[in-house]
Amino acid sequence: MKKKILIAQGGGPTMVINKSLVGIIEEAKKEYDVFGAFNGVRGIVNDNFINLSKIPNQKLYLIENSPGASLGSTRDKPDKKYCNEICNILQRKKISKFFYIGGNDSSDSLKIIGDEAKKNNSYIQCIHVPKTIDNDLVLNDHTPGFGSAAKYVSSLFAGINLDVNSLPGIYIGIVMGRHAGFLTASSSLLKQKKSDGPNLIYLPEIDFSINKFLKDVNEHYSKFGKCVIAVSEGIKDKNGNLIAEVISEKKEKDAHGNSQLSGSGMLGDYLSNIIKKKLKIKRVRADTLGYSQRSFLGSASEIDQRESKLIGKKAVIFSKKNVMSFSIGIEERKNFTLDYRAKLIINELSNIAGKTKYMPKDFINKKKNNVSQKFINYALPLIGKKFIKFTSTI
Amino acid sequence: MKKKILIAQGGGPTMVINKSLVGIIEEAKKEYDVFGAFNGVRGIVNDNFINLSKIPNQKLYLIENSPGASLGSTRDKPDKKYCNEICNILQRKKISKFFYIGGNDSSDSLKIIGDEAKKNNSYIQCIHVPKTIDNDLVLNDHTPGFGSAAKYVSSLFAGINLDVNSLPGIYIGIVMGRHAGFLTASSSLLKQKKSDGPNLIYLPEIDFSINKFLKDVNEHYSKFGKCVIAVSEGIKDKNGNLIAEVISEKKEKDAHGNSQLSGSGMLGDYLSNIIKKKLKIKRVRADTLGYSQRSFLGSASEIDQRESKLIGKKAVIFSKKNVMSFSIGIEERKNFTLDYRAKLIINELSNIAGKTKYMPKDFINKKKNNVSQKFINYALPLIGKKFIKFTSTI
Repeated sequence: MKKKILIAQGGGPTMVINKSLVGIIEEAKKEYDVFGAFNGVRGIVNDNFINLSKIPNQKLYLIENSPGASLGSTRDKPDKKYCNEICNILQRKKISKFFYIGGNDSSDSLKIIGDEAKKNNSYIQCIHVPKTIDNDLVLNDHTPGFGSAAKYVSSLFAGINLDVNSLPGIYIGIVMGRHAGFLTASSSLLKQKKSDGPNLIYLPEIDFSINKFLKDVNEHYSKFGKCVIAVSEGIKDKNGNLIAEVISEKKEKDAHGNSQLSGSGMLGDYLSNIIKKKLKIKRVRADTLGYSQRSFLGSASEIDQRESKLIGKKAVIFSKKNVMSFSIGIEERKNFTLDYRAKLIINELSNIAGKTKYMPKDFINKKKNNVSQKFINYALPLIGKKFIKFTSTI
Repeated sequence: MKKKILIAQGGGPTMVINKSLVGIIEEAKKEYDVFGAFNGVRGIVNDNFINLSKIPNQKLYLIENSPGASLGSTRDKPDKKYCNEICNILQRKKISKFFYIGGNDSSDSLKIIGDEAKKNNSYIQCIHVPKTIDNDLVLNDHTPGFGSAAKYVSSLFAGINLDVNSLPGIYIGIVMGRHAGFLTASSSLLKQKKSDGPNLIYLPEIDFSINKFLKDVNEHYSKFGKCVIAVSEGIKDKNGNLIAEVISEKKEKDAHGNSQLSGSGMLGDYLSNIIKKKLKIKRVRADTLGYSQRSFLGSASEIDQRESKLIGKKAVIFSKKNVMSFSIGIEERKNFTLDYRAKLIINELSNIAGKTKYMPKDFINKKKNNVSQKFINYALPLIGKKFIKFTSTI
């Protein structure tokens, strides 16, 4: 009888999380009976499973090219008791390996599940397969899902730059990323020349001051008559308070309910109105980029697709060579050269779980309102370099 | 000496407006000296011209593949005096034909310019080359620019549907289109099965009632535990007042400044909060799709690109056969069959100018909260049919 393994998907979906899922299935079904749990860890405690070995290849092809988590996801962060329950069920079902595709919350859950199993004198090999558009996993050069989200955000800003060239004014785009600014920084990746937008970029890593912001905008607008601005939803004041939360508490609690960052236009509208009011500029527009950043159909980066699938396959292969639990990852590059190729490594779960990677200082410009060339060199290969030819001049 | 012709671009840009520009240039430069005015009619009165015949082919290739209006655009709606000035300048510059790529405002301007010229006993042939993502030009099957915007909106909602499958809740996407609902309706074009989102669609053509809306949402959510909703920014109450304006006047004037529809998250946030409050549903998200609908880089529909270029070329060819001013257009189809091919026609400017085409009644379902199959048959060919293979089930 074949050994049984389990796969689940957790946290916010990405455009390529199903690539990793199918990568694991394709590699694992050669040797194991492959099961999936619906809606992440919740599917385990709810006894909601599917036999993935039986899905025909043609269907797998469709699944791997679909954004979103085909197994369903969950925001559940299991505590010890929850993990213990998971652990018992996995043992009863004789699951020998559990692959959890998710961000650092998922690696945290895996760590606890592994520890609980040990206490019961049993063993379940827990394998964390990373995904996150935030790109905020430590010890990883970058994470599956980031390249595609970055391709979407950079394509959007490249188009917006041309739109604002056509009808000049101020444009603010609010980009996802509560803690790390990588995705917001990616708005700059398809600039054709220095004067192209985004002209200003505000990251969660840099203390946000509304006066400095207005000064920056005014300076650029006075000179060029237009300004494209990328702002992270996670910008914070010097005391570490989220600007979105500060606004929400100050005056818009009624209208906007709570301080949820995505899926609300509040922060963009606030910044747009303050520019109109203080700088007396008429044409100011703010868009909040929203969930399409992680789910848009047809914007996946080819290299991200390839790596996400490979990381799934290799997770299975590594799990046979290493009996311990681990988190698979992409080794950090020393130099950002053009002949880029990902090298897969394994990390200890405890070194990944609950930790956040931030934009390194040298990825940010001196004025702290844009990115550095080093960031461009780092991130450009991940969106597939110049996948489309266009111009920002006539 | 070659005759001189002039091109300008007006109104909101699209992903393919430069295809029409390059179509005109390529065809016209065989016979004419081709000039462009920067920023639409404003460039004419400001004496801001460029010789387009001299742009190398390689550059034209980049321009035609770039979203946005490469010549720059304008929101100016010239009055008679303004048109008279334009007219005088065109005569002084010995421009024999003026091609204006724009929506129905642009065709209106052309009509006045032509009339003013006549009064001065001179003649300028005015040719309107349509573009609008709103698809609201009468006597046209559809308009260049619509197919690409529809491809973007449908790709976005297809991805969102998978995202909401992964993490169930309610999603509201606010789509552009102040008067006509074609673009909002397009959110449905990539549904794989009946139960896929968008599950509810609200158009400007249908009186919007907040109670009916809440009833619809509650009905769907109770049954399926999730609901994806597409809402036009232009929804109106039974008295014809924009909902966005009503909200804005009622309570959010301070925070949101004015009732500008795009570039503000107000309407989405309002609908999202009212669902949370009245239906006690926790996970509700609203995105306002924003300017990327008309400018995203890399989402142009191939058929839209082809038609937009062709319409530019044919506008030049028709202008030689017909000495009168006209608006080029795409003949309305009688049947929506798969062997679709656009037939180009000419319309009188006065029949296009200042008129708006709305969604026909039979493009809307009986409950008036979704589209009909007839609309799908009409619009699906315009986004390039199934350009990507994916699945919404496992």
